[in-house]
Amino acid sequence: MDRPTLPKGTRDFGPAVMAKRQFIFQTIRSVFERYGFLPLETPAMENLSTLTGKYGEEGDQLLFKVLNSGDFLKEADEALLSSRDSRRLTPVIAEKGLKYDLTVPFARYVVMNRHEITFPFKRYQIQPVWRADRPQKGRYREFYQCDADVIGTDSLVCEAEIILMIRDVFAKLGILTYSIKINHRGVLAGLARLAGAWNQEGALFVAIDKLDKIGEDGVKTELINRGFSPDALTDLFSVLHAKGTNPEKLALLRNKLGNHEAALASIADLEKVFDLVNLLGGDDAPVELDISLARGLSYYTGCIFEVKIQGVGGGSVSGGGRYDNLTAVFDAKEKSSGVGFSFGVDRLFDAMEELNLFPEETQRSSQVLVCHLDEDCQRYGLKVVQSLRSQGIAAEIYPDSSKMKKQLEYADKKKIPFAAVIGSDEMKSGVLAVKNLKTGEQHLQTLEQLIALLKPVHKP
Amino acid sequence: MDRPTLPKGTRDFGPAVMAKRQFIFQTIRSVFERYGFLPLETPAMENLSTLTGKYGEEGDQLLFKVLNSGDFLKEADEALLSSRDSRRLTPVIAEKGLKYDLTVPFARYVVMNRHEITFPFKRYQIQPVWRADRPQKGRYREFYQCDADVIGTDSLVCEAEIILMIRDVFAKLGILTYSIKINHRGVLAGLARLAGAWNQEGALFVAIDKLDKIGEDGVKTELINRGFSPDALTDLFSVLHAKGTNPEKLALLRNKLGNHEAALASIADLEKVFDLVNLLGGDDAPVELDISLARGLSYYTGCIFEVKIQGVGGGSVSGGGRYDNLTAVFDAKEKSSGVGFSFGVDRLFDAMEELNLFPEETQRSSQVLVCHLDEDCQRYGLKVVQSLRSQGIAAEIYPDSSKMKKQLEYADKKKIPFAAVIGSDEMKSGVLAVKNLKTGEQHLQTLEQLIALLKPVHKP
Repeated sequence: MDRPTLPKGTRDFGPAVMAKRQFIFQTIRSVFERYGFLPLETPAMENLSTLTGKYGEEGDQLLFKVLNSGDFLKEADEALLSSRDSRRLTPVIAEKGLKYDLTVPFARYVVMNRHEITFPFKRYQIQPVWRADRPQKGRYREFYQCDADVIGTDSLVCEAEIILMIRDVFAKLGILTYSIKINHRGVLAGLARLAGAWNQEGALFVAIDKLDKIGEDGVKTELINRGFSPDALTDLFSVLHAKGTNPEKLALLRNKLGNHEAALASIADLEKVFDLVNLLGGDDAPVELDISLARGLSYYTGCIFEVKIQGVGGGSVSGGGRYDNLTAVFDAKEKSSGVGFSFGVDRLFDAMEELNLFPEETQRSSQVLVCHLDEDCQRYGLKVVQSLRSQGIAAEIYPDSSKMKKQLEYADKKKIPFAAVIGSDEMKSGVLAVKNLKTGEQHLQTLEQLIALLKPVHKP
Repeated sequence: MDRPTLPKGTRDFGPAVMAKRQFIFQTIRSVFERYGFLPLETPAMENLSTLTGKYGEEGDQLLFKVLNSGDFLKEADEALLSSRDSRRLTPVIAEKGLKYDLTVPFARYVVMNRHEITFPFKRYQIQPVWRADRPQKGRYREFYQCDADVIGTDSLVCEAEIILMIRDVFAKLGILTYSIKINHRGVLAGLARLAGAWNQEGALFVAIDKLDKIGEDGVKTELINRGFSPDALTDLFSVLHAKGTNPEKLALLRNKLGNHEAALASIADLEKVFDLVNLLGGDDAPVELDISLARGLSYYTGCIFEVKIQGVGGGSVSGGGRYDNLTAVFDAKEKSSGVGFSFGVDRLFDAMEELNLFPEETQRSSQVLVCHLDEDCQRYGLKVVQSLRSQGIAAEIYPDSSKMKKQLEYADKKKIPFAAVIGSDEMKSGVLAVKNLKTGEQHLQTLEQLIALLKPVHKP
């Protein structure tokens, strides 16, 4: 039999990696909940009618489709089959697909449950998504997204709270050097108009979003092909590259865009967000107005965010923005403003590994292994291990009657910090030989002393 | 546009249900970890070569298959296409499938990583699985399993610890009346031989497993067709239905099966498990030797378990057993004994709802909503809400400047227990009007008093 393998672009997460991932998930979840967001889960499979057409043509190609059960060819058209047209046959033999992101299923959920939902609706969602992308370093076919959205309000308090949540998550993760870039789609739209391209806002967003990838020259070429004039682009880029403090940049924008009412409203939005962030005590959050920030997704209409960690490879680890119309794809009458953001767990994980930020506690399993010299000692040890567990201490007893060396090796490989060794002396005296496996030190301790040493202390 | 729908047999879990499900998951996870089990996650998709043939022919039919990406018909045989043979075309156009359970992917993981794993390997896994079953009440196409297994030891300490874990989970969930049924495949094999059917052990397991469904007459008919004699079956059923204490049943088995060495060893195993459970302090666990317990899965070879909650509908909520050969399907040289069990979350959820066991804390979201009479009050409130959050209190501020009635309705619908109302008086005095939304009582409190009221107290 061939050795089994994993499908391309998918991963197992063994205990050591899981512990670190759970540390990230748990940190994010606790911050989301502290800000009043509640969890939602949607199925892995959605109807393809829900997913198709929401991510552009490329996105449709990247959807994993699930074959209909039973005799799926029964209804297939003879001519279609013999034409071997995979693309046209797909909708006939596959009605369902794996979800591609958490946003479209969320919009679907809101439309289906709008009469039961209390708005403004604050939900978070931490689940895997699937994309049939070509696997490469840091890009997987199955990966987790961590989204939080508020839908049903246009209050800028939500934007400010997103910035505070990012600050809180990074503080808890121990990430100190990062920047939260913010911009506003209305500002970019104003700049597009200023450059004489009234109906080319979308093209401007898409092109600027590629600045990191294709450089300024590439972006300019693309925009000139779209009808922007070279002179206008020189002006435009002088604004996009503006340096200075946030108030200085806001003053520059106000100066440049003073004639455009919608752009002025966008500038006022940004000012208000900065003000609200300060009221929330977020003056330590490294928020930077970056006029060249565009974000790729088409549905954003207001403030947009992106977060980068300094000193590590990889792109942004978090991003989001405001949208006015997310649910309209499912119901044209539905029009409710919302704002959301997302953490990229794989990138956060890689950055934290690179910066060596995972706390040591996340890297170990049980706190103590009860070891024993013979079967009688093991019987005695069963009472010891259970006493530890009843005090909330994660503890194991080595299940077999193996040599002490083997038992201690097991503890060592599993990074269990203490071994409580039981021999006939310990059984007689009722005192345990407790070995610190990191330092090698060994002390005689009563069960009560061991419990006091290991008992979890809850920090507020 | 049509209203969107969910695929048949799948579910969204909104915030209220999620909170209850997370309570169950978190309880199970904390007990697993206290006993030294560590988390593992495997991908949703596995190669079909990994899954096919592991669950019987019916199981193969129930696998969800994922269509190959790109031009999947390119390699398909012309004749095969025109024959419209769905079953034979499937492996050509679909290489991957969604996992059907957590056990086969676990075995695949162990075989692929055996050189890195520290044995005995104790892992738990809480993930969704998918089956293309006909959806019906309580049966879904996507549902979670919660498995824990120890692989690489035949120590009966593991069986005893499983019983203790079940006891601990049920105690934490508040489920008081339940029974943990235990039996041993070796005992059933001995009874099969006693009934003169030496090579019909498997048939006996399968038939007895249907006792609940098809009744004693149905089972007898099936076994007579398999070559059991009616007289032998009468004898057999008198043993299967044996009443009495566990020691009485063990004595009966010892009496009946005294000539069968392997059966005697199995009886000794059961005795040892009872003994170990008592040493672990599990004398309060409602363990019952049920000689008619068989379990459906073919790979069990030793002790088997099943847990039922009294007074509620639905079948077993937990079950498992020992296997000698789980990884052999992937590598014939690999032979390591293990034992595992699983909680059925959907059934646990239904039972807890029926028994009204979910604690009230799981049913609410934030602890306090900060309400405000105008924009200035909201600005003041932003500082209040952030002070609460910085103390670990889940708190929200109503984002819009809406009428007080609307703000309080929001808190009420979201089951937020307290509202802190800020008007101009409160801003002047620095004291908050705190309203208990359950009792309707309202008191003036300082921020410090409110924090003291709401601050989470960590219980050991």
